[in-house]
Amino acid sequence: MTPVRVAVNGYGVIGKRVADAVALQPDMELVGVADVATDYRVRLALERGYRLFGSTAEAAAAMREAGLEPAGDLGALLAASDVVVDATPKRVGAANKPAYEAAGVKAIFQGGEKHELAGVSFVAQANYAEALGRDFVRVVSCNTTGLVRVLGALRSEGLLERARAVLIRRGTDPWESHLGGLVNTLLPEPKVPSHQGPDARTVLPDLDLVTIAAAGPFNLSHVHFAVVEAPRETTEEEVFAALRAAPRIVLVRAGEGVEAPNSVIEIVRDLGRPRGDLWEVAVWEDSLAVSGREIFLTYQVHNEAIVTPENVDAIRAVTAAERDPASSIALTDETLGIRTELIPVAATAGERV
Amino acid sequence: MTPVRVAVNGYGVIGKRVADAVALQPDMELVGVADVATDYRVRLALERGYRLFGSTAEAAAAMREAGLEPAGDLGALLAASDVVVDATPKRVGAANKPAYEAAGVKAIFQGGEKHELAGVSFVAQANYAEALGRDFVRVVSCNTTGLVRVLGALRSEGLLERARAVLIRRGTDPWESHLGGLVNTLLPEPKVPSHQGPDARTVLPDLDLVTIAAAGPFNLSHVHFAVVEAPRETTEEEVFAALRAAPRIVLVRAGEGVEAPNSVIEIVRDLGRPRGDLWEVAVWEDSLAVSGREIFLTYQVHNEAIVTPENVDAIRAVTAAERDPASSIALTDETLGIRTELIPVAATAGERV
Amino acid sequence: MTPVRVAVNGYGVIGKRVADAVALQPDMELVGVADVATDYRVRLALERGYRLFGSTAEAAAAMREAGLEPAGDLGALLAASDVVVDATPKRVGAANKPAYEAAGVKAIFQGGEKHELAGVSFVAQANYAEALGRDFVRVVSCNTTGLVRVLGALRSEGLLERARAVLIRRGTDPWESHLGGLVNTLLPEPKVPSHQGPDARTVLPDLDLVTIAAAGPFNLSHVHFAVVEAPRETTEEEVFAALRAAPRIVLVRAGEGVEAPNSVIEIVRDLGRPRGDLWEVAVWEDSLAVSGREIFLTYQVHNEAIVTPENVDAIRAVTAAERDPASSIALTDETLGIRTELIPVAATAGERV
Amino acid sequence: MTPVRVAVNGYGVIGKRVADAVALQPDMELVGVADVATDYRVRLALERGYRLFGSTAEAAAAMREAGLEPAGDLGALLAASDVVVDATPKRVGAANKPAYEAAGVKAIFQGGEKHELAGVSFVAQANYAEALGRDFVRVVSCNTTGLVRVLGALRSEGLLERARAVLIRRGTDPWESHLGGLVNTLLPEPKVPSHQGPDARTVLPDLDLVTIAAAGPFNLSHVHFAVVEAPRETTEEEVFAALRAAPRIVLVRAGEGVEAPNSVIEIVRDLGRPRGDLWEVAVWEDSLAVSGREIFLTYQVHNEAIVTPENVDAIRAVTAAERDPASSIALTDETLGIRTELIPVAATAGERV
Repeated sequence: MTPVRVAVNGYGVIGKRVADAVALQPDMELVGVADVATDYRVRLALERGYRLFGSTAEAAAAMREAGLEPAGDLGALLAASDVVVDATPKRVGAANKPAYEAAGVKAIFQGGEKHELAGVSFVAQANYAEALGRDFVRVVSCNTTGLVRVLGALRSEGLLERARAVLIRRGTDPWESHLGGLVNTLLPEPKVPSHQGPDARTVLPDLDLVTIAAAGPFNLSHVHFAVVEAPRETTEEEVFAALRAAPRIVLVRAGEGVEAPNSVIEIVRDLGRPRGDLWEVAVWEDSLAVSGREIFLTYQVHNEAIVTPENVDAIRAVTAAERDPASSIALTDETLGIRTELIPVAATAGERV
Repeated sequence: MTPVRVAVNGYGVIGKRVADAVALQPDMELVGVADVATDYRVRLALERGYRLFGSTAEAAAAMREAGLEPAGDLGALLAASDVVVDATPKRVGAANKPAYEAAGVKAIFQGGEKHELAGVSFVAQANYAEALGRDFVRVVSCNTTGLVRVLGALRSEGLLERARAVLIRRGTDPWESHLGGLVNTLLPEPKVPSHQGPDARTVLPDLDLVTIAAAGPFNLSHVHFAVVEAPRETTEEEVFAALRAAPRIVLVRAGEGVEAPNSVIEIVRDLGRPRGDLWEVAVWEDSLAVSGREIFLTYQVHNEAIVTPENVDAIRAVTAAERDPASSIALTDETLGIRTELIPVAATAGERV
Repeated sequence: MTPVRVAVNGYGVIGKRVADAVALQPDMELVGVADVATDYRVRLALERGYRLFGSTAEAAAAMREAGLEPAGDLGALLAASDVVVDATPKRVGAANKPAYEAAGVKAIFQGGEKHELAGVSFVAQANYAEALGRDFVRVVSCNTTGLVRVLGALRSEGLLERARAVLIRRGTDPWESHLGGLVNTLLPEPKVPSHQGPDARTVLPDLDLVTIAAAGPFNLSHVHFAVVEAPRETTEEEVFAALRAAPRIVLVRAGEGVEAPNSVIEIVRDLGRPRGDLWEVAVWEDSLAVSGREIFLTYQVHNEAIVTPENVDAIRAVTAAERDPASSIALTDETLGIRTELIPVAATAGERV
Repeated sequence: MTPVRVAVNGYGVIGKRVADAVALQPDMELVGVADVATDYRVRLALERGYRLFGSTAEAAAAMREAGLEPAGDLGALLAASDVVVDATPKRVGAANKPAYEAAGVKAIFQGGEKHELAGVSFVAQANYAEALGRDFVRVVSCNTTGLVRVLGALRSEGLLERARAVLIRRGTDPWESHLGGLVNTLLPEPKVPSHQGPDARTVLPDLDLVTIAAAGPFNLSHVHFAVVEAPRETTEEEVFAALRAAPRIVLVRAGEGVEAPNSVIEIVRDLGRPRGDLWEVAVWEDSLAVSGREIFLTYQVHNEAIVTPENVDAIRAVTAAERDPASSIALTDETLGIRTELIPVAATAGERV
């Protein structure tokens, strides 16, 4: 089978990860990456051996000026591609859509764009089928992806009637360092409910979810605290089973020294993962509590990494390179190294739960 | 009427604030403060003109050695006092209780001690009467005080059936600076529900409250995110009215530039308050949302300051210097400068809600 | 004597402090404060009883709209004033100068403006006489003020031939809370030497000083690390004597528990200072080391507060309300509560050095 | 040639990195790793396929208890090894030395141990030859290694007469998350000069270096600000040439978007390095300034990673597996992926300096 030819437009936090992930897929070919920058970031794309394009003609010219020897502009990239992953900043994707349509390539947008731009908002385990063969799909944001994975896992097993969640978001990205900003305080979002609840409903219709969000002075992950009400009394065992049955969720344990998001990131660094990426949602097993119909959950969403596998699956869905969701997820997970347990569970730990 | 003679044992974050507040009360006399330190902190007690005592004979000796000229040890302080506010570190209060009993002084303990030590856990607006004339009372912790004030205000008005809250606590106190610690991460408490729910029930029996807690890399306040379910449908107006009817709660507005806990602290600094203390719970008006029976609240609890007025009221309660809760609260609030609005609301703002 | 009539234009971090300080001076009258905002900050000016003016006609109109009842615009304020302290953002001061000239009021600018705008850059202890009777004076920035106080103190006593200093600046102001920003990293200023060295020479001509600057993820003070070379061998005693002989410098001691800038701020909070302001430079006594001709210094510059007394003195200088520098400094220091020791030194501590 | 059989005792921040680096060497064999923990960290050692030993008999028993199936205790590990890298916490190494002597294995200690324990303190580029064939060698700490690399590079080229440096250290390690700690402040070390100056002289005798140190609320790297005085006037070109001539130093440029330590770490993450490790010292090219005889330098020392290659070289030195320093360094650098430029320099950038 001919590999799907994939372009990545926007080589930032998400774009560079998607590019690397695409390059690992046996059924895909990374045609090249496009951006508007000429600084160290795109030089590293060249370093990785990727063909570099200017996202605009001007960008291509600036790259040439800077000695970067781009392979052309976006038009050239699209002409050689079947599908483009648009990982440009918020709202730039919408502006790019006509170019994608004109070039006849399918496009995957990110969560910064509106649902209506693509018509289908996507989380692989939730609605892969809905995206099959579509021209445009939107991979939802990191927070929404985390919510859909965890709450969707519970709903699939009949354990979710409604959910209320507090999202404490990272204040900035690890690579950023501007003066001013978020120091020694939380910053609550004034709008309650925050947008993630409605956004999750673009993937899981009728999900009864309200979210409250705030940002904190740290940069390594979001943390969600969710209170779920099941339609009936349940047990920790049932909840664990539901979480384990879903892909891309791992359980971690403070009792084993994994006390905080930074310990989880230390684990994925130790696992040798690229950029210390945590593609899975990490749910704290110790903090998970069930009381009657209520389920209390604390979990970590690695904002930089969580949508990487979703983008890969979205490519397969829109191109119909794979029609079976589970097969696509399995292939993505195997190539990236996504796990069901981050750390090997000792023999004696079997009786833990 | 003879002023109540008050001792403060433990001159730390809470003790020093309570000492200052007591010194402002017309019906109280601050006999002195006791501590075990000889460093800058107790030198500042002398600077303020407080009589200094050693919390132990050894501490008194060390103070003498350090040239601090203490007025004696704890026994001497208690002998001249009617009531002692014990603001020593967690569990030291329990060890001090026999000395208080032997000296025949009443004692106010803090939230680090167990409820059973005192038998009465106290938040002025909730259960002042219960503490009247008791020998021992425990002022609950900052987080529990915040929860009781806000949730108690709603319950009083028939607006609370149950509450679920996420508490993001400050990671350390502003004066502390040890190597190691909480940097660039949240630290979830592994135990869910956290202890604050049961603790609030020592003040508000049968309160249906579950809390989840985590600490963050900041030191200036806790922030609570609460989801309250009322027994019936309600409105924002009703909720605002309930909050305004309760003492020691103020509303703040992101729309007026008060976006985060640090802006609130800036206001109280601008108001000229000692140490930039926020004695009130600050509830964000913009973030307050009501949907059917559900109420969503975001509010700030200034961990250093919130229990100061509670301790003052507790002194009046145990000594029966004032039998009417509202009168005690009003006197405390007037002497400290506790307000019903932190910032003057403009004339035109009257129609806001 | 008629009090000097003072206007403050710009009611931000510096303006509000200068307004409060002016209001405390027996020989000054605060006519009013002007700003462009209508949010909580200017409401608090009204709360303090200050007359509020719009910095522009539009701002005055917006204030009226917001129900703030301003007393007029900048023209009205200047018409009633002898001198204006311009504490507007960087470069706005330059734009305001013609209005001040037209109104015939003298003006004090801040360190964000260029030296040339005023012709005299000012630190009270260094060059008060130079500002006497001038129409325009510029109070230098917080960092430069700190450098001039400490290095000037050493130079006055013949202990400074050259100085090299590393300035670790606070990343943002305590009241600010934008997303993005400085988290979990230092941010070095790419330009070395940084501008503070040349800036200090506007006050202390021929000062041989080179500075390197960086910002850190904290908001409560700058810290300077200076290496000074004296023209001859010296001793710690000589250095301490020089520092003690200069105004607005205090020594603090890690050995007494004052380990870090946040402990120093805790002290000034405990001293009951408005906003927890540290007007003095705090030099660590324990960290001060002398080796041959070299002097190593670590000291704290409270960016929010350090220029407050300088502005007060500058007002006296330009209006010639007081011709003697020492008398002006003494009066400012007494009214504000500026000290020579932050914490009382114990009797036995006399032999410490 | 038989590979050198290497044991790693202490599988923490340094030990795990050294183990991975040893496993990459063609002339070494990693026999196993020993530790006292049974938590997630050692489980990850097993995950990597390393043989796990208990650092003590008790630890081995606890591991067995925890189902970890250790291969034995330290004695067993040493019996199968030629050399042990001791990466245990400060001062534990000294306690371990008799066991190493008894087992007849050579040992590499870390910078937490005193120089006297080993007799030779080591930085590969500075004194490899001195360590040849020794039984004990101490790899100096991260800060000292950074100082020796940079200052040694200048001294080798006759550009260093004396140096004064301010070291702003990271406040904690990325994996740690205790309550309390360093928030919103710097923490100056009270002792000046700090210990790094004398420590650097254990490697570079007679180095005229004084250091001042402080810690900050971040966890991703140390940053040094150094003022070097050359014996004669010099130029930026000479300094760049000296730095480029030395191994394990890279130049980075704020002008290319690499503004702060976190951008540098982003680069090494993008380069796919394990754990985002920066083995080189990163010197800011833009911030490097020369004035007469003075050189001003700003550079980053990645505390987690910088000593990894030094330990590998130290193994070769003590076992005399390689007698030529440059050959050992070259082999280590090639196997790890240590670079002379982190980012590819564009063709046009050649004329930059």
